[in-house]
Formats: sequence, C-alpha cells, structure tokens
Amino acid sequence: MSKAVTIFDTTLRDGTQGEGISLSADDKLKIAKKLDQLGVHYIEGGIPGSNSKDIEFFKRVQELGLSATVTAFGSTRRKDSIAEHDPNLKRILESGAKATSLVGKSWDFHVHTALQTTLEENLAMIYDSIAYLKREGMEVLFDAEHFFDGYKNNPEYALAVMRKAEEAGADWLVMCDTNGGTMPHEVHDIVSVLAGRVTTARLGIHTHNDCELAVANALNAVRAGAEQVQGTMNGYGERCGNANLCSIIPNLQLKLGYDVIEPEQLQQLTNTARYVGEIANVHMPVGQPFVGTAAFAHKGGIHVSAILRDSRTYEHIAPETVGNRQRVLVSELAGQSNILSKAQEMGIKFDPENEETRQVISKIKDLEHQGYQFEGADASLELLLRQANGEMKELFVFESFKMLVEKSAGKPVVSEAFIKLNIDGNSLYTAAEGNGPVNALDNALRKALISYYPALKNIHLSDYKVRVLDDKDATASKVRVLIESKDAANSWSTVGVSGNVIEASWEALVDSLRYALLGQTKMEHEEVVSASQGLVNH
Amino acid sequence: MSKAVTIFDTTLRDGTQGEGISLSADDKLKIAKKLDQLGVHYIEGGIPGSNSKDIEFFKRVQELGLSATVTAFGSTRRKDSIAEHDPNLKRILESGAKATSLVGKSWDFHVHTALQTTLEENLAMIYDSIAYLKREGMEVLFDAEHFFDGYKNNPEYALAVMRKAEEAGADWLVMCDTNGGTMPHEVHDIVSVLAGRVTTARLGIHTHNDCELAVANALNAVRAGAEQVQGTMNGYGERCGNANLCSIIPNLQLKLGYDVIEPEQLQQLTNTARYVGEIANVHMPVGQPFVGTAAFAHKGGIHVSAILRDSRTYEHIAPETVGNRQRVLVSELAGQSNILSKAQEMGIKFDPENEETRQVISKIKDLEHQGYQFEGADASLELLLRQANGEMKELFVFESFKMLVEKSAGKPVVSEAFIKLNIDGNSLYTAAEGNGPVNALDNALRKALISYYPALKNIHLSDYKVRVLDDKDATASKVRVLIESKDAANSWSTVGVSGNVIEASWEALVDSLRYALLGQTKMEHEEVVSASQGLVNH
Repeated sequence: MSKAVTIFDTTLRDGTQGEGISLSADDKLKIAKKLDQLGVHYIEGGIPGSNSKDIEFFKRVQELGLSATVTAFGSTRRKDSIAEHDPNLKRILESGAKATSLVGKSWDFHVHTALQTTLEENLAMIYDSIAYLKREGMEVLFDAEHFFDGYKNNPEYALAVMRKAEEAGADWLVMCDTNGGTMPHEVHDIVSVLAGRVTTARLGIHTHNDCELAVANALNAVRAGAEQVQGTMNGYGERCGNANLCSIIPNLQLKLGYDVIEPEQLQQLTNTARYVGEIANVHMPVGQPFVGTAAFAHKGGIHVSAILRDSRTYEHIAPETVGNRQRVLVSELAGQSNILSKAQEMGIKFDPENEETRQVISKIKDLEHQGYQFEGADASLELLLRQANGEMKELFVFESFKMLVEKSAGKPVVSEAFIKLNIDGNSLYTAAEGNGPVNALDNALRKALISYYPALKNIHLSDYKVRVLDDKDATASKVRVLIESKDAANSWSTVGVSGNVIEASWEALVDSLRYALLGQTKMEHEEVVSASQGLVNH
Repeated sequence: MSKAVTIFDTTLRDGTQGEGISLSADDKLKIAKKLDQLGVHYIEGGIPGSNSKDIEFFKRVQELGLSATVTAFGSTRRKDSIAEHDPNLKRILESGAKATSLVGKSWDFHVHTALQTTLEENLAMIYDSIAYLKREGMEVLFDAEHFFDGYKNNPEYALAVMRKAEEAGADWLVMCDTNGGTMPHEVHDIVSVLAGRVTTARLGIHTHNDCELAVANALNAVRAGAEQVQGTMNGYGERCGNANLCSIIPNLQLKLGYDVIEPEQLQQLTNTARYVGEIANVHMPVGQPFVGTAAFAHKGGIHVSAILRDSRTYEHIAPETVGNRQRVLVSELAGQSNILSKAQEMGIKFDPENEETRQVISKIKDLEHQGYQFEGADASLELLLRQANGEMKELFVFESFKMLVEKSAGKPVVSEAFIKLNIDGNSLYTAAEGNGPVNALDNALRKALISYYPALKNIHLSDYKVRVLDDKDATASKVRVLIESKDAANSWSTVGVSGNVIEASWEALVDSLRYALLGQTKMEHEEVVSASQGLVNH
C-alpha cells in the first residue's frame, strides 16, 4: 500500500494575496464546492473577521456539507496578552470552522524585527494560542512562518518553536518557506532533521515560488517525511505565488506513487483548474503544466509523426489521467472524443461516423478558434449539440437592437435599449432603461418575451464576466462575455464573442434565455393578448 | 574560487516551438544582441536551412560581432547513409556557426519507434555525424534526446550512446529530459552515474517544464556534475516550455554560489526578460520569479509594515541584484503605510500627521470600498496623490458624451460616440466610430484632444479588462474597468468603476490620457487653429 499525502488548499486565503485576484463570498463558495469534488482534504477559507466577505463565507459554507475540512486562518495571540481575550482567536472560534491554521514566528530575526518582542514571549504566544484552541476542541495546524530561513539562521530556536507547538497539542506542524528562497536540497535536509524529532504531530509543507522551485520543494519535503502539502490552484498567491497544487497532485500521485486523491478525481484536475481561473478572472498560461491547453500540444512535424505512432514518444503521461487532452495541430482526431462524451453526459446520442456529427464537431472547433470557450459555458455547448440533434426551435426572429448610453456633466448616466423582434409574424418593438447597457438590453429582451414565456419571471442573471481575447489591440480587439443565470433550482452559463462587447453580451443573453426555456412551451398569441389585457384591467 | 557554469540559450530555436511564438530574422537578431549583453555563453540561433528566416539569421548574425558562441542545431545523419553526403549536416557547416548542437537518440524505444532502425545503426549515425563535424573544425555539443527516459528503460544503451559520442570527439554531452517527465532526485542520480564515466567531454543539461520541475532539474544536474545549462528566456518552448534561464541564472549565482555571469550583467536580467517578452509579443506573467512586476510586490498590511522596517523580512533577495524593484500594492487589506510608501516611491512627500494626508488616505480607502482597485492601477493612484499634492490641472471641462450601438439582422454591428468638451472656453463637439463602444469613445476623445496635445499620437491602449464586482445582481451590478496604455518607453494602468461599463471605461480612458500628459504642455488655441489650417492647406 502506498503512503497517503494530505492536500491543504489555500486558494481562498493565501491565493487571494496574488496581484489582481479578488474573490467575492459567492466566488469563494463556488470554488470551495469544486475543490471538494476534486478531493482536497482541507479548504482554508479566509481570515474570519478580517472583512465582511470572509464572515459571509464561513457562515454560508456550513450549508454546503463539504467532505473537506474547512479551515480558518489566524495569528497567534498578540504579545503580552492573554489568549482567551485575543479578539482574533475569538473570531477563529466563532467562525464555525473545525480546524485552524495558526501562524507564528520561527525565525528569531522576525521575532525581533517584525514582532518586536523577545524569543521567550514568542514561544509563549505560540503555546498559549494553540493550547487554548485545542481546549476549545479545534484541530490546529501550526504554520511556522519562515521556518527554513529561521532554521538556517538559528536552528535551535526554530526547532524549539516546533517543540513548543507540539507540546501545546498542535496536530500538524507546517514548515513554511514564506519568502520562497530556499533551495530544494536545503528543504530535504531541514525536513529530515525535524522529521527525526517530532513525536505526536505530523508534518506539513507550505512553499512559495520565488525561485521557481515551489513544486520541487514541496516534493522534496514529502520525500523527507512531510505528510501534508499546502498550496493553491494554479499557484495563485503573493509575489510569485504559492506552490501549485495542479502540478503537485499529479506529480505525487503519478510520478512518486503516493496516495492523494481518487483516479476519477484526478481526471477532474484540468477542468477544476480552468474553472477556478474563470471565477478568479485570471488568464491561464497556455503552457501551464498538466492542465494548460498547450500542455500536451505538439507543433513540430517530426514530433507529430512520432506521436501518431506512439504518444509516449513525446508525452510524459497520458493527458486523460489529469483530464487534459492531446492537441495535434494538424489532426482532427483531438477534440472529437471530448465532444462526444459531453453529448453522452447530456443524454444526446451521436454516432461518430455520422455526417451531422462531423459537422457539429467541426462547427465547435471553428467557434473555439474564433475565441469561444465552452469550458465555462456548458449551456451554450448543450444548445449547439441539441440544435445539431434537431431539438431546438428558435424563440423569435431577430430584427434589430439599438443601445444608447448618455452622460451629461452633473447628471447620472442613462442607458436605454430598443429591441425589435418578430414572434409568429407579430412584430414586437420594446424599449427599456437599465443600470448599464447590458442590463438595459436584458430588461428590454425580457419585456418582449415574458408574455409569451411567463417562466422567465423566475430567472435572473447571477454573474457577468468580460474577457479581452487578444490584447495586441486593446479596445479594438475581441471580447468574450460569460453570463451565468439562475432559477430557483439550477444555474447555467452561456458565452458570446464579438469585437463589440454589447453584441457579445446580447449573444450570451439570448443563449441564456434559450437554455432557460428548453422544454417550456410558448403561450399562443391569443393567450398573450388576453393575458396582457388581464394585466391592464386588474 | 567558485565553479563556473556555462549558459546555453535556445530561445531562438527551442523557444520558438512554444505556442503563439514566432520570431522574424530581425527579431532574432535583436534578441541575440540583448542576450549577448546579458552574458550568456552560447546562443542557439535556429536550424540552418529549415526556413529562410534562419538562413538570414545565420548570415547577418556574423556582422554583430557577438562574444557568445552562435550555435546551429541539427540532427545526426539519416539512417543507412553517409555523413559527408547528408544535406542537413552540410547546411550546418555552411551556416557559418562555430558550434553545433547535434541531436541524436538515446532511448532504445525511440530508436525502434521513431527512427525505425537498429540500435547499432543509431550508434553509427551518432559517431559518423560528430566525427565528420569535428573534422571540419566545429565545436560539437551532442544533445542526447530523451536521455533520462532512455536511461530508466535501458541504462546500458543510454550510456553506450554517450560513450560513442565522446569517442567521436563531442565537446559536450547534453542530457535532455525531452518529455519533461523526470523527477529531480532521478536527475541527480542519473547525472551522477554519467559524471563518473566521462573522461574528455563535459556535461550539459537540457530540461523541460512538463512537471513544473525544469528549474529544479537543471539545478540538481549542476549539483551532480553538469557544467552547462540549456534553457530559454522566460521559459518559452514547446508544450509547457523549456527550463527558464531567468530563474536558473540567479539561482545558480545568488543561491548556489556558482560563477555564471557578471553582477552588472545580472542586473540586466529583468529588463532583458521583459525585452524578449516584448519582441516575442507574449504577455509576461506578473508573478514570474525574479523578473515579474509582482515578484517583489507586497499586498498584505502586516507584510508591508514589516517590509518597511527591513525588506529581508519578506524578500528572499534584494530585487536590485536582478534589476527588479520592490512594489507596495495598495489593497483593501492594507493600511496607511502602503499608501505612504507608494507616495515615497513616486517622489511625493506626505507627512502622515498632516490633515491633507489623512484626507487623501481616507479618500483612497473610500474609493476602494466603492470597488476601485489601485494595485493594478498605479497611474490612477499617482494621479490621486498628485492631485492631493496640488500638482494637477484638468485637461478639459467635460460637458457630455453619447454612445450608440446599433445592430440589425444580417448587418454588422455599428458603434458611434459623440463627445462634447470645453477647453479654455472653446467648445469641442466630435464624433467617431469604433470597433466596439469603448474603442469609439477612445477615438472620439483623442480626436477632440490631439490638436491640443500632439503627444497623444504616440500613445495606444494595450490592454482592457472588465470585472463585475458584485455578482448578486449581475448586469445591474458595478463593474471595474482596468486599462493599460503604452507609449514607446512606458506602460501604465488606470481604473474606472461604475454601474455602467461605458461610464467606467470613460473614467479609465480619461485617467490614462491625464497620466500620459503629466508634464506635457498644451498647445494654445491659436497654435491649434493654425496647425489645423496647416493640415487642411498642405
């Protein structure tokens, strides 16, 4: 039996320290759910009480019933005070989280410079805080900040800190390479020393990527005795980022033979990484190891012909084991199986030999080439597949829209939309105002359709994202709009692409309503007329 | 005296295998010159004869008089043929390069599957090709493709390949982890074995980043006896890229004590990395180790106050040693110390005790609360600080804008903007079309201002980002727009926030131009009129 390694994800806490990364409470809850499905063992949600988003997160996450242990982050008590009275420790307890990662100093230089206290008081701060939270029944992970720098500078003190934390009852001692400057062989040596001294606690490793060595350092720590790896999805985090779990998990499991997550969960790695990237609204590097779109892409002609003989010639693992796929730029073989399996998931049967199937696959590839991305827009993909399967009727015939935004000095900005549609030969011309142009379009479109499709009343847009696709030309370049919609029971995402943000939004809006109305029947014109009269009369 | 390591740069050859990377002969020559100044020892220019760009490069590079050795890449002779008649080897000789990297197979599986020949014939191909080029006076680096996979599968054969190359006179034996799947401890073990067996040749290492371990693997190889590291600037290359020299060079020199390039050259690392990124037209990840704009950026308030006491608290090296700099990001988590140090960076002196200082800080915090984010919008922050410092004059008096987007079935979407401004009592009313509404606004605004501020001609928008701030209410919620602008020498970012994406974009656009024109003087109305008449008359 292979040895298990526990994964501690801190995307929602340390990850949000990355430049340009900012997550709402809703974003955090969505990511937590997805991480739980991936099978990570700990999800660090934030710093309770530091801001209203984190307070909301810890409250609402309890309703999700996750398998992972939700963890709250905080510092040891303030110097020269009492743990039981510490406001931060109190907030950790009040958060409802079952576990806490409690950060403390292990580098004497930091005790003097940053904390400005004595080495003895720092030990007391660590002991008191851990002992208090243990008495209150929490699982405690002690994050030893700057452990490696501390050890290199004053090994006795760094080890004394860990001993003190263990005495206080810490379940885990987490060795942090906070500044990311430690070399892999040093990590191996130092972890080995500590591993020989701990008795009750288990060891964790938390590395940063300042030397482009965070993954190697985490692996070396595990090989030297650590049983938990802390990191973030896509390596998000302050400065150069945290250790990238999207690389660490497959390396541990596929290369080093550790037991980390289930093989079926590992197959969700690529789509989880991309999902988190979409929510965080951060460009994924195409060449990101394991999960990037180019991670298994082959460009060179010689490589391609070897690959076609045997993919092991230029691939270090089978891409499917991490849910990615081979891309051979000259070959049409690549995406087909993905699309077919997606269709199967939706209960649509496609025969891969069929001419229509080939047509829809080539249409999807063409759209992807134009900048559409269906990873984050399942509903738009389903509409395409259902259309190819002959299941779709159009909601209306589009005639035109106009969108006007007007701003005069000292007055609020005004947005208006004008829409002309035709349903069953009846021309509809509606206008609406909105808080912003897309909202105005949305309002006008609903106004036009709601009497035919009363179910639209219960549907609302829950998220709206815009991404510029090609930054060479900035405001003149293509944009991709993703819209998420909700009704009482479900949520779904749709996509639109255009050089014009309004047109791209319109496309995603229309798809959203088309998807919402799948299986709904339209009211007939006569009913609509009498229903409207009804509204006027009552 | 510390041991020297030789740097072999293959940005111009293996780097161009990266998705989306394409370099003209001119681009390659510019990069070669810059790499030479950085002090790399070998510059691999391409594959002579493979295309006209590479032919031109090898011809023109001779005129540059570089210190680095320019190297041409090629394969061992074809199977069952004679080296002296091999067209590829002939082109290597004709290229004028003094050195060649000659790639050959060292994995028996590849000899059978890809080459489809015998193990003996492969050894002969290697021996004949190297011996021939050595007789012709070239320095030969033998690139043993898939050396680590080969060694793991059939160590005797992999070592026999290296022995044969050495017998033929190869100056360097380069161990390639072509598929990027080897773990660091395996690299260390295998390099140690080979290092114990070579006699005349020296060892090089060539790694790929498929497991996010290319840098660690290169360092481990050096620690086990390799004296040359091959890699690319910014880690460009096929799939997940090659080993990143921008991380390897400082790690070897600053962390492991090897002698690589001069300290003054190391200070050129950041600007060289960014220069290559510009020429290759590839977005640099902000968090790229050592050279990224966020590599030494600090966001958390506690970190920032520690950094201000002593930067070693959260920096693993002094950023200046690699030509980078410290940045303090202003974020919701941060406090007054961030803003003050930012002002200091800009050369603005604020007394923290002063009433005006308190006002600007509370204004910035208030804006952040409204959704502004200044960590990605340095220029907007600088404008606020300069305004508080009494340095700003307004460019114009805003009167109104109107923005119209119109789409009819079967016709392309049309965007128009109408702007009314007042400059020195002169009313300006302009209109412009654009590819999308923001582009139309941008065009109209420039059209109005350019005759007063001719410097705007050289400025263009280089990136445009939109983020929805609160997704509870989707299209009716606030959006934040970030705009990045560039002129020949600089780039800067500005922010706008509004419930209306058009208004937010307008705000960021105006800030971008205000920043661009800091220190520029306006042309007077009379000059503008006569300049405009000049344009009409000539």
